[in-house]
Formats: sequence, structure tokens, C-alpha cells
Amino acid sequence: MSLDTAVTKPHERLAAALADDMGAVNDMIRTRMASQHAPRIPEVTAHLVEAGGKRLRPMLTLAAARMCGYDGPYHVHLAATVEFIHTATLLHDDVVDESDKRRGRPTANLLWDNTSSVLVGDYLFARSFQLMVETGSLRVLDILANASATIAEGEVLQLTAAADLATTEEIYFKVVRGKTAALFSAAMEVGGVIASADETLVAALFTYGDALGIAFQIVDDLLDYSGSDATGKNIGDDFRERKLTLPVIRAIAAANAEERAFWDRTIAQGRQSPGDLDQALAILARHGTMATTRDTAIAWAQTAKVALAPLPDHELKTMLIDLADYVVARIT
Amino acid sequence: MSLDTAVTKPHERLAAALADDMGAVNDMIRTRMASQHAPRIPEVTAHLVEAGGKRLRPMLTLAAARMCGYDGPYHVHLAATVEFIHTATLLHDDVVDESDKRRGRPTANLLWDNTSSVLVGDYLFARSFQLMVETGSLRVLDILANASATIAEGEVLQLTAAADLATTEEIYFKVVRGKTAALFSAAMEVGGVIASADETLVAALFTYGDALGIAFQIVDDLLDYSGSDATGKNIGDDFRERKLTLPVIRAIAAANAEERAFWDRTIAQGRQSPGDLDQALAILARHGTMATTRDTAIAWAQTAKVALAPLPDHELKTMLIDLADYVVARIT
Repeated sequence: MSLDTAVTKPHERLAAALADDMGAVNDMIRTRMASQHAPRIPEVTAHLVEAGGKRLRPMLTLAAARMCGYDGPYHVHLAATVEFIHTATLLHDDVVDESDKRRGRPTANLLWDNTSSVLVGDYLFARSFQLMVETGSLRVLDILANASATIAEGEVLQLTAAADLATTEEIYFKVVRGKTAALFSAAMEVGGVIASADETLVAALFTYGDALGIAFQIVDDLLDYSGSDATGKNIGDDFRERKLTLPVIRAIAAANAEERAFWDRTIAQGRQSPGDLDQALAILARHGTMATTRDTAIAWAQTAKVALAPLPDHELKTMLIDLADYVVARIT
Repeated sequence: MSLDTAVTKPHERLAAALADDMGAVNDMIRTRMASQHAPRIPEVTAHLVEAGGKRLRPMLTLAAARMCGYDGPYHVHLAATVEFIHTATLLHDDVVDESDKRRGRPTANLLWDNTSSVLVGDYLFARSFQLMVETGSLRVLDILANASATIAEGEVLQLTAAADLATTEEIYFKVVRGKTAALFSAAMEVGGVIASADETLVAALFTYGDALGIAFQIVDDLLDYSGSDATGKNIGDDFRERKLTLPVIRAIAAANAEERAFWDRTIAQGRQSPGDLDQALAILARHGTMATTRDTAIAWAQTAKVALAPLPDHELKTMLIDLADYVVARIT
């Protein structure tokens, strides 16, 4: 292993290996988000698209197609599709969460308004839909239609599960698949499908994306309590928004009467006082649920790595394996 | 003409003639909007879907397919698709407009919240997308992807054109195509396409839907100033929301200095006082723009009727012609 690969992050190595394709994807994103009559649209989207995201999802699509030997043009359309769906989801999430920053920058709905966030999100969904149709693959359309439904259903489920102490791990994983894993798995799967890859490989790509997405989201939820500037989120956001994430769900399952009353007051009833976040952290530590949640994330990263076994040797495969390790390295 | 057809409204006759198909559409809507894990979804949509809308758009799809001799199952999927897209648009509009009633009932975002309106709308879009994919027709997907983009772009354009006195009739018509005509024309067109109709007929169906939608929206905009309980909207909503609709655009184009100052204060700057709506109405009357707008609506209804000429004789064709007359009858 050269010094270079040892110090470079796997998503940066992916970006370097896929630089030509990503250039085409970025061009397509810029072209397709333009609107002759509604300049507000590129204004809003440029803010998000240029905001320095890692472009992880489109890179998954490109990598999957390349590993399966694809040499046609449509992996670029699909990568742009996936990024448009992701961006549209972020715009709608910003309305939903009333969050005031994302990636450390003001969200679109503070810079503009809820209205623009909703409508420009809809525009990006429609654009992504047009891009998929251009590939001419009904199977790709089927996969992304199903992913879109899972995403929306997961978001609604998260909404109804908020503040509900009866939320189970099963519900949590449905929410996680909706908000993160469904697009990761679809991004991988369509890369294989457009390359007409063997069904075994398509299934392997799906499983990698699903497991990577779940690991990624669990880590994100952990960092909301353990804290890291890297997420650009405020620490304790989920607690304040009364979201039931894995460390809390497990702590509630193990709670004594006094702890139960604490969760009931702060999460179910939403009556929070200064110092409550510290007490929540102490309860999580007492039951070791931060540690068990970390173990769960690491197990999903392992599932992701193992899933790639049927894929042929390829530098991109190595990077995707490293990426699974990297995702959980933030918490280990 | 029997007494019965003379007194029954055309959309009621369409509903009677298409009763079996509409039964299947309603069943499909109920089945597909269900969500095993997120009961909030059917709660929100049932409120809208059962709210007594005329189901005009799905009936257009069914009628178009039937007139072209279609006897397969997929016109039902497409009719449900069109109603889902329409309902999703209403949900997102309710967030946007901060309107407090629609069809005379409280809007979903007052009964629930903005969050539910956004996410359930997204869910319905995803569901509609799944339904389209089931038809297996890439051309249908292409038409509805383009319609979705036109709808979203029109909504954003309306947003940026609000309060802008420089809004032209050209911009107005782009907005109208987005908010109404694009889905009407797509609803008709996909009915012809799924029936594998001749291109001449498909084009005729598209033009009918486009012109009917434009006539429909112009009438709606007129009634916002002339007033009618039938719309269930508050009179003067567009004036208060500083929307530039056809009667106002034409009055601004013909304004003297004093009138110009009035529009500048009330629409551009949004400083409105009691009595301003009455004064706006007096200015519209002075320039006769309510009358010329009515004439424009009637001309579009005429375009719709003429467009159907290539279609074979059919009871549904007669009803669609009567429907075009009926749409403008509200203002004549």
C-alpha cells in the first residue's frame, strides 16, 4: 500500500478514480437543473449542489456500473438521477425539520422560504424522473420508483414515530432504510442493472448499498449524541426533536422507573430543561447503549464488505470495501 | 336530447358513463395509498381524496382510452396515477399558499402540519410513479415525467412572478400550463397512447386537454374576482396573495398613472387596506378586463371543442365537448 492510498480517504480515492465520469455527472446536473423561466430553481439548487457534499450516492452508481464492465453512457444519467433525488429529499427535509443548518451552512428554507424548498424539490424529482426515462430501462424505473416510495414512507414513519416511546428497533430500521439505505441500495443496484450484470452481482450490489446505508445512518445517529463537528449538525438535535434513535430505543427498553419517567417527560411530553441532554447522555452511558449501537454499526459495515465478495477484483471494489470501514471509523 | 341529459352536468354524465372504470380507479387509489407502517398517510390522503372533488382528471384519461377503443387494464392505472399527481400537487400547494381552505374545507396542513403535507405528497408522487411503471410503457413515462417537470416549473414561476407588475401574458400562460393544463393534456394524451391510437388522435387528445385546462384556470382566476361559492375559495384571495392573473395583467398594461400607483402599492409593495379589493374591482371594470378575460376563456374552450374533430363519434366525445362549454358556462 503506497503512502498515498494510506492517507487518502476512500471517498476521495473513489472521486479520483471516477473523476472523468463525475465530471460528466456534474455537467449533467448543472444542465438539467437549469430552468429557462424560473431562475429561482438553479439559485436554490446551486446552494445545495455546490455545498461540498461528498457526492457519495452518484459515485456508488458509477462504481457499480464500472465494476460490472459497463461502457455505455447511461450510468451518468443514473448518477445524476440519484443526486437529484437526494437533493430533493434534503430540500423537503429542511421544510420538515425546521432545521437551521445543514453541512454547517444555513438551509435553503432560511435563505429563501418553505415554498421554494417544496417546489424546487418537486422540480428536481421531476427532472430525475426525466433522466431515468432517457435510459430506456423499465427495470431501472421500477427500482427507483420503489426506492422513492420507501424513502417517502420512511420519512412519514419517522414523523409518526417521533416522541413515541413505543418505537421498536424494527421501526427504527424501517425509518433508516427510508431516510438513507433505500437510495444507497438503489444507487448500487441500478449501476449493475444498466450494465446488464448477472443477477448474483446485482443482488450483491443491492446488499452492499443497503448495509452501507444502514451503517452510515446509525453512525450519524450516534454522532448526534457523541458529538462531532464533521456532521455540521448541532449536538443533541435528535434529543431536542424527540427522535427515537437506536441508543435511546435501547436505553428505554432497559429503563428503570425513574429513567422511564425521564424519557416520558423529555421525549414523549417534550418538556425539556437545561441539563436534560447531559442526563440523557448519562443514562445512555449507564446502559452501554452507545457501545452496543456502535457494535451494530460495525456489524452492518461488515455485512456490506462481505456482500461484495461475488464481484470481480477491481480497484473500485477495494475502495468500496475501504469505504465501509471508513464509515464506521468515525465512531471507533 | 332527453330531459335527463339536458339537466345533468357533463362531468356527471361522464361519471355515469365511466362508472365501472371509475369504481376500479377508486379501488386502486384506496389500495395504493395505504401504508402498512405509516397510518398517517391514508389519514391525510383520505381527507383529500374523499373531499368530493369531481375526479375530472382521471375521467379524462379513461374517456380518452375508451374513445380510442382501448380494452386493456392499464387505463385504470393511469387514471389513478393522474389523480395521485393531482392530489400530491394540492398537498404541496397547501404548504405553499398557506391557504386555510380548499373546496370549502380546512386544508390538510391546518388539520395536520406542513411536514405531513410535504411528505405525504412525496409518497403519492412515488406511488404514482410505481403505477406508471406497471403499465410498461416508456412513452407514458416520458409524457408524465415531462408533465411533472412542467407542473413544478410552473409553480416556481408563479412564485417568482407574484407581486411582479412586469408579469406578461406570456408568463401567465406558462404558469397556467404548469398549474393546470399540463396535467389535463397529459391525462388525455396517455389515454390515447395506452390505446395505441393514431398519432393524429393522440395530438388531438393532447390539444383538447391543454385548451380545456387553460380555459378552466382562466375561469378559476376570473371567479376569484367575480366571486362564486362554487370554488370554495375566498373572494379576493389572489389579490391578497398578490398573484398576477389575467384580468389584473391586462388592467396594469392599460393603467394610467394613478392606477399604476394603486397596483404598485397593493401588489408590488403589498400594502393593502380595507376597500382596496373594491377599488381593484372598479379598475378592472373600467378597463373591461373581466370581459376580455372571459372572452379569452371562451376562445380556449372553443379550441378544445374543435380539437376533438378527428375523434370518431362516441357518446364520450359528446360529453367532452359539452364539458368544454360547461367549464366556461360558470362565467357566461
